Amino acid sequence: MRDSAMLIDGVPATSLPASDRGLHYGDGLFETVAVVDGRPVLWPEHRARLDEGCRRLGIPVAPPDALDAEVAALAEGQGRGVIKAIVTRGSGGRGYRPPAEPRARRVVARHPWPDYPTRWREQGVRVRVCATRLGRNPALAGLKHLNRLEQVLARAEWSDPDMAEGLMCDEAGRVIEGTMSNVFCVSHGVVRTPQLSACGVAGIMRAQLLRLADEAGLATQEMDLSLAALARADEVFVCNSLIGLWPVRELDGRALTPGPVTRALGERLRAVWSL
Amino acid sequence: MRDSAMLIDGVPATSLPASDRGLHYGDGLFETVAVVDGRPVLWPEHRARLDEGCRRLGIPVAPPDALDAEVAALAEGQGRGVIKAIVTRGSGGRGYRPPAEPRARRVVARHPWPDYPTRWREQGVRVRVCATRLGRNPALAGLKHLNRLEQVLARAEWSDPDMAEGLMCDEAGRVIEGTMSNVFCVSHGVVRTPQLSACGVAGIMRAQLLRLADEAGLATQEMDLSLAALARADEVFVCNSLIGLWPVRELDGRALTPGPVTRALGERLRAVWSL
Repeated sequence: MRDSAMLIDGVPATSLPASDRGLHYGDGLFETVAVVDGRPVLWPEHRARLDEGCRRLGIPVAPPDALDAEVAALAEGQGRGVIKAIVTRGSGGRGYRPPAEPRARRVVARHPWPDYPTRWREQGVRVRVCATRLGRNPALAGLKHLNRLEQVLARAEWSDPDMAEGLMCDEAGRVIEGTMSNVFCVSHGVVRTPQLSACGVAGIMRAQLLRLADEAGLATQEMDLSLAALARADEVFVCNSLIGLWPVRELDGRALTPGPVTRALGERLRAVWSL
Repeated sequence: MRDSAMLIDGVPATSLPASDRGLHYGDGLFETVAVVDGRPVLWPEHRARLDEGCRRLGIPVAPPDALDAEVAALAEGQGRGVIKAIVTRGSGGRGYRPPAEPRARRVVARHPWPDYPTRWREQGVRVRVCATRLGRNPALAGLKHLNRLEQVLARAEWSDPDMAEGLMCDEAGRVIEGTMSNVFCVSHGVVRTPQLSACGVAGIMRAQLLRLADEAGLATQEMDLSLAALARADEVFVCNSLIGLWPVRELDGRALTPGPVTRALGERLRAVWSL
């Protein structure tokens, strides 16, 4: 299976049954994993989030050996690349009602490394604020599930190729995350990021950066953050499993200066994972 | 294509490209249509809602002739049946960002008529209240889109085959809809149903019942409704395009008596559409 770029339940394939509940209801989860020097970066952490998501949605956890082997097979021999692993509740059930004994389906695919400009990582990015809001739902909060229409609508709001990311707020105006990233700010030396109890994706890189900050002796806070609080912060950055960390040099039209905490965390992140 | 039970972009098929954005993001819409005597019931209304959804999501409206012909072909010769039509944004784009010129994909499938007990329609159903809440998002409200994890989780809350439906509330406790139906109540002769500006699916049968009630000289109101208001109502019923109308005879453990307005609307509905 090494030569194929996609495996469905371990078999090289490019199509899946149209009865899949992933298509009908977004009834599943996914992980997007960086590949560096043939290794899937932070795979155990991605795997753990996927398993936790399966547990919360009541999807039988995919056989660990099978999924691990499929990801390793697609990563092997790749310099840099991306692996996207989807687990759905499979086919069956009656309408929304899940089948009594669901057979999860695995879709693991390899994609090219995204060609974001190097200067984005080095000099920072421009970030806008999206009009599309995130609905609050604690039952789904934190999960990287397949219900992503809000992100699609938010990402469709702009086409300027120099605008790297868009921030999304909930109905009450709390900043939650970027369309494809988590967001952090640094205020008076404290590293802050939105708490995600009601919406948002609990990013793997977000958790790693909270840990790196903690190890560096920096105070960290997961909290409610308004756009105003973000605009007043000394430093702002966004992160995900592919981009690593991007300093924000412009937020909603206002210039920001990438600062020392952002720089230190970015260097640490690159030293550990080459991202 | 008459003998096939599924058409994908007009071609008999049972699988679709795993790259489809319907799978990855729930980036699409669907309609569930009753077939009676070989005719898709209220197809022009379903078609209009699908077109409106495509417009709001920025998906190019499927060629009217093609989709209409596919639905008609699958309906023809069927006594009773169900047609589910899915339209996705197709494949492509970069992550959440939609492709500049998306090619929508159509999945039209025929299913057997659901075997709900006849007594549910005649004597009423038992309805529970789900713990799973609906997130509020005006950008998606009213649409029958493919992000349906909330409904899946709500429907997974019970397995009693005699419990016909579960009601879902928003975060603030407003009653919005059933997992697969819209809900109405009758209070002092006024026919009321939740307003759906922030969440919920604007059902085809819901709109028809509002129209039938109006034609029958009954006052109608789309409004915020609490569970308490529903429990105090004289009559409660649920509806969708397949079940037509089910009187509610038990709401969250409390007995209700199906009343004259429910009966009259149910009879009118059956006379017009044989549902």
